[in-house]
Amino acid sequence: MGMIGGGPGSFIGAIHYKAAMLDGLIDLVCGAFSSDPDKSKQKGQELYIPALRVHSSFNAMFEIEKALPSDERMDFVSIVTPNHLHFEPAKLALENGFHVVLDKPMTFDLQEAKELKVIAEKSSKYFCLTHTYLGYPMVKEARQLVLQGKLGKIRKIYVEYPQGWLSTSVEEKGNKQAKWRTDPSKSGMAGAMGDIGVHAFNLAEYVSGLQVTELCANLNIYGESRKLDDDGDVLLKFNNGATGVLFATQIAAGEENNIKIRVYGEKGGLEWQQKDANTLLLKSLDKPEENLRTGAGYLSSFAKHNTRTPPGHPEGYIEAFANHYRNFALCIKSKMNGEKPKQEWMDFPGIEDGVRGMAFIESVVKSNKAQKKWTPFEI
Amino acid sequence: MGMIGGGPGSFIGAIHYKAAMLDGLIDLVCGAFSSDPDKSKQKGQELYIPALRVHSSFNAMFEIEKALPSDERMDFVSIVTPNHLHFEPAKLALENGFHVVLDKPMTFDLQEAKELKVIAEKSSKYFCLTHTYLGYPMVKEARQLVLQGKLGKIRKIYVEYPQGWLSTSVEEKGNKQAKWRTDPSKSGMAGAMGDIGVHAFNLAEYVSGLQVTELCANLNIYGESRKLDDDGDVLLKFNNGATGVLFATQIAAGEENNIKIRVYGEKGGLEWQQKDANTLLLKSLDKPEENLRTGAGYLSSFAKHNTRTPPGHPEGYIEAFANHYRNFALCIKSKMNGEKPKQEWMDFPGIEDGVRGMAFIESVVKSNKAQKKWTPFEI
Amino acid sequence: MGMIGGGPGSFIGAIHYKAAMLDGLIDLVCGAFSSDPDKSKQKGQELYIPALRVHSSFNAMFEIEKALPSDERMDFVSIVTPNHLHFEPAKLALENGFHVVLDKPMTFDLQEAKELKVIAEKSSKYFCLTHTYLGYPMVKEARQLVLQGKLGKIRKIYVEYPQGWLSTSVEEKGNKQAKWRTDPSKSGMAGAMGDIGVHAFNLAEYVSGLQVTELCANLNIYGESRKLDDDGDVLLKFNNGATGVLFATQIAAGEENNIKIRVYGEKGGLEWQQKDANTLLLKSLDKPEENLRTGAGYLSSFAKHNTRTPPGHPEGYIEAFANHYRNFALCIKSKMNGEKPKQEWMDFPGIEDGVRGMAFIESVVKSNKAQKKWTPFEI
Amino acid sequence: MGMIGGGPGSFIGAIHYKAAMLDGLIDLVCGAFSSDPDKSKQKGQELYIPALRVHSSFNAMFEIEKALPSDERMDFVSIVTPNHLHFEPAKLALENGFHVVLDKPMTFDLQEAKELKVIAEKSSKYFCLTHTYLGYPMVKEARQLVLQGKLGKIRKIYVEYPQGWLSTSVEEKGNKQAKWRTDPSKSGMAGAMGDIGVHAFNLAEYVSGLQVTELCANLNIYGESRKLDDDGDVLLKFNNGATGVLFATQIAAGEENNIKIRVYGEKGGLEWQQKDANTLLLKSLDKPEENLRTGAGYLSSFAKHNTRTPPGHPEGYIEAFANHYRNFALCIKSKMNGEKPKQEWMDFPGIEDGVRGMAFIESVVKSNKAQKKWTPFEI
Repeated sequence: MGMIGGGPGSFIGAIHYKAAMLDGLIDLVCGAFSSDPDKSKQKGQELYIPALRVHSSFNAMFEIEKALPSDERMDFVSIVTPNHLHFEPAKLALENGFHVVLDKPMTFDLQEAKELKVIAEKSSKYFCLTHTYLGYPMVKEARQLVLQGKLGKIRKIYVEYPQGWLSTSVEEKGNKQAKWRTDPSKSGMAGAMGDIGVHAFNLAEYVSGLQVTELCANLNIYGESRKLDDDGDVLLKFNNGATGVLFATQIAAGEENNIKIRVYGEKGGLEWQQKDANTLLLKSLDKPEENLRTGAGYLSSFAKHNTRTPPGHPEGYIEAFANHYRNFALCIKSKMNGEKPKQEWMDFPGIEDGVRGMAFIESVVKSNKAQKKWTPFEI
Repeated sequence: MGMIGGGPGSFIGAIHYKAAMLDGLIDLVCGAFSSDPDKSKQKGQELYIPALRVHSSFNAMFEIEKALPSDERMDFVSIVTPNHLHFEPAKLALENGFHVVLDKPMTFDLQEAKELKVIAEKSSKYFCLTHTYLGYPMVKEARQLVLQGKLGKIRKIYVEYPQGWLSTSVEEKGNKQAKWRTDPSKSGMAGAMGDIGVHAFNLAEYVSGLQVTELCANLNIYGESRKLDDDGDVLLKFNNGATGVLFATQIAAGEENNIKIRVYGEKGGLEWQQKDANTLLLKSLDKPEENLRTGAGYLSSFAKHNTRTPPGHPEGYIEAFANHYRNFALCIKSKMNGEKPKQEWMDFPGIEDGVRGMAFIESVVKSNKAQKKWTPFEI
Repeated sequence: MGMIGGGPGSFIGAIHYKAAMLDGLIDLVCGAFSSDPDKSKQKGQELYIPALRVHSSFNAMFEIEKALPSDERMDFVSIVTPNHLHFEPAKLALENGFHVVLDKPMTFDLQEAKELKVIAEKSSKYFCLTHTYLGYPMVKEARQLVLQGKLGKIRKIYVEYPQGWLSTSVEEKGNKQAKWRTDPSKSGMAGAMGDIGVHAFNLAEYVSGLQVTELCANLNIYGESRKLDDDGDVLLKFNNGATGVLFATQIAAGEENNIKIRVYGEKGGLEWQQKDANTLLLKSLDKPEENLRTGAGYLSSFAKHNTRTPPGHPEGYIEAFANHYRNFALCIKSKMNGEKPKQEWMDFPGIEDGVRGMAFIESVVKSNKAQKKWTPFEI
Repeated sequence: MGMIGGGPGSFIGAIHYKAAMLDGLIDLVCGAFSSDPDKSKQKGQELYIPALRVHSSFNAMFEIEKALPSDERMDFVSIVTPNHLHFEPAKLALENGFHVVLDKPMTFDLQEAKELKVIAEKSSKYFCLTHTYLGYPMVKEARQLVLQGKLGKIRKIYVEYPQGWLSTSVEEKGNKQAKWRTDPSKSGMAGAMGDIGVHAFNLAEYVSGLQVTELCANLNIYGESRKLDDDGDVLLKFNNGATGVLFATQIAAGEENNIKIRVYGEKGGLEWQQKDANTLLLKSLDKPEENLRTGAGYLSSFAKHNTRTPPGHPEGYIEAFANHYRNFALCIKSKMNGEKPKQEWMDFPGIEDGVRGMAFIESVVKSNKAQKKWTPFEI
């Protein structure tokens, strides 16, 4: 693979790299790690990439890679830049015949997302949007339980994403992550909702297999002199009559990063949270609550395929991330071999998740400004 | 004390009785346990009450008790009937010179609540509304921490009350508790919101010391042929600029009764849930999260006063309930002795909680019907 | 009932009192609360006992009560004095025709215990030894699951009782509880083992239905100038070939009172701890772990009978204690009525638990001094 | 690096591989994955190793690698074979000038361990013994807190390692992991004690900074027709007067793999378990218990250095393993560069841990056979 972004000091770039390396299926062969040539070079050396394949412009990288023989050139590119720099390299990659891994949210705005969808579908290349949390084996199990009807018809979905790291104005004190995330020119029209609310939305739709149809949002700015929401609460309606609540906040002082989902149907419920990522609680009307655990023999093929260790050897965030890379690589490999990928391999988030995520961001911002209670979810 | 309601099969009546007995400060001397004379008699015998002081009408009970010498007659009455039978006996009790303990929600509607407030204030009698959860020592500690400024200015309040026992139509299968709670003629204009939403609301205002000013509600009926909400989600605005979310549901299949609150300020946060009632999580921006525990030496006088056992000897729901009775009795006793009650004794929910609770119910129902997003919280 | 001990400042006396009061089946009618007449009087007034029935000597109390008509005199006596004052009043009570509730450990030494057993068996009176933890509904459920064979043949038992309150020499700083517990003339031949180790031992035998046959103990004294063990670790062998570990400590700095048991058989395991007293974990070879919860419909009649509230309304330490009193009272009442008590009522700890508990203490102390690994458990 | 062992179906081989790959510091360049040439070849292909550098004998591998130019040949070898095949390749590697990573327990018996120590010390090569659990950042924090004196003088250490996977005779049903572990000719003189007891022992000495001086063990065989212990309980004495309990079992039906340690000193205690690996509980005499969390700013440099993600992004078993590889690689790299490695890098388990681990195994087996209570811990 090649990488765009992820220069010195990047958080998510390092995660993408480790996740890609973990299973020995992928090799990093080239990169445009930064638009600053020195920084890109520095990163390239750190990662033992030959200098010839380190660039400061993704255009250059595409040109050079394309010219290489097919068994040498990168098979796909991983794009880990801030939101405003997603669309252009993703478009170019697809148009130049490379599969794409892209960090979320997919684009700067919904318009870009819809364009990218057209391009991606035309390209017949694989496209993976790294909504990390869908990579956890117990999240996959949760979805399978819902699809199998274990909970009956779904009625309620509560999803939350509390963080506290923007409780004070760290963006003014040199925090690079905070800086671009609170800057509308880089982050887009939403702050917390674009950064983490979209994860919560995506998780809710993935686990439930449902789609949001209407929402009612209240977004807030608590940090002084901030321009984008750092907090928001949203009421949800789903396409089967279910309702729910989503909240995402970056000013819950003392909270870390505990995304959590609860889903209830006519016959039972389930609960998962990242803090206890290897456990899925399954609740029933008349039986004891069960603690389903990563690695156990009674799990679905989707959970098992995405696990590396026996029960009680905890896997975490990087492994969840790596599951997307592994599945993506397995799909590319089977394509190369002219084989049909397994359904477990194809279960990674893609272009449709990206479009719906951008529509969520725009709908939430629209609803926040509206006087009326319900705003339709529109793409 | 005397008791009105709590006949055979009553859940909350039995809890009130045990709570009142626990600390040896209170004796049950008379009762109108049921309007059915046989049932009232049966309960009276069970509780070893002399037959002469067992009635089938509360009017009769008040008449007879009033006529007794002051050292024999009951000092206060505990009213544990369904909602539509709260106002009348409470009014009569106050007008006849008895202190009153009343189960929540205070009345059938807000109008009654406001009338009762006038009567109570005129009477100069003590009035306790048994919002159970305010009786937990760690809930009292939470309030004290907020009042002391430990969290800084409050920004977010999340409060939730998930239950699952109305997931199916148990009210049609002989469940007495479900029957009256789903019947608008007994329960009032709300179902889940009146039964448990009002607890969540009350807890949020108590712990935060803030007041709701506007809300946006979505109430739902999932149980077939039900007339009242069995589920609802509410966005909240508070009088200091804080915002929040409240949800209460009785159709979260597999959930028991885990009321939970999280409050975040500029400097920290706290979290309490009934399932782990003897722990209060205190979160800070830069320090480790702390597990504050019932009975510990570092707690406030409010928490300590409401605890009977050393750390690690768990106290529960009945003890929380009993704290209201104990504090109420201590206040009456000090009044009898012409002494000023301690502030820790006076910290039980009263008439103002009742009025605000009824206003919450009416505001939520109003908001649910409204097209516009925000409905003012009005009394 | 009448009470011996429990004067001003007593911890366990207050617990006994509240536990006895909770369910309205028992009335306190007389007491010898302290050998100091003023203190006994003070306590009697606090508890609204007529002065005539308050004594400073239990002999006097027995004399006077015996002379009362049967419908006025106490039916049973509750003895809550330190260990060295257990045997004499218990013996007298039984010989004078009163049922007895006695705090653990049963006596000062094993010899007394064996004598008391003879007396109790001759008396045909009910005898309850308040090993609190056997009163928890989920502990009763644990025993029932083992007896039903849900775990298969038992192989391992781990039981532990960590406390930290004797980490420093609080007995020299006015802590009354610590003072007598660390004094061999009042506590007996063991400290931590007699105070809490015996609870752990009792819990292990009750839940497993097995009996200890050999043990290997290492007792320690960490508190300066202390004469009795404040800590101990014990290896156990049981009569079916199972083995296990018991530890009890009062110098685990920062620990509260979290007695915990784990039992494993050929087919599964279970885990219970007081900190989460309303949950029982049930583990299986091939199925998800289950969270059994107090109040649930799927529990045994033993667990259900000992529960007052629906699931999710936590019951605690006082309720567990109260279950012993309630069952004891129900047995006495059925005896009075010439009826046979239900098996659920008779499930409280008694004279045999007491004898085995004292034998445990003596065996542990003997083993601690021994050079050889295993010491037989002898009565 | 090169790898010895880890052929098709190996559990721990795959973990070593992923752990080594995770941080991009290490490349796998050669391997003797199996003594079966076909299997070794198969694994080599899977891992994209050139056929020339895939062997079926480690001797051959050492020969060929040695002959390569220094910038091509492997710098170190990772040995992941069963216990009876540890000594020979480790010895050869060191003697041929390669650094060594070796899976635990270090050797087949103590004699081999002591020989290997002499060889290692003579070689001046780096040697890492992969006691996984020492790689967790919160385990490192625990050690630092003890070393800083936060707990005061240590008094008690409880360490446990419960597993349930050998509850039935899976070694007879094709479970490869179980087969060699229950075979004395491959595993050595102990079963559970050698496999997991030694991890618990190692963790206890690492966190406490103390050394075991005497022990008293009871080992058991519950699996039918098994020759080695599948369960054992051990009392411990440490060189500062502290005492403790260690248990390790593989027949705790329903348990996964939850190694756990608790340490108490005069001023406080701490608790860590793998199931909640990113939390370290810190207990104090007079203050609330604290939840220390991976990634937090208040942690020591040792915890921080071994963490890849911000708080709330859970790291797990593979990351803990990878920390050893990363630190090992950083040390080798600094040696190559003639620099002094940082103390945080040198904090990986080595030859001394290995010798003490083997001495633990032999002492435990000896104690189990002894009649007398205490057996000295001898090397």
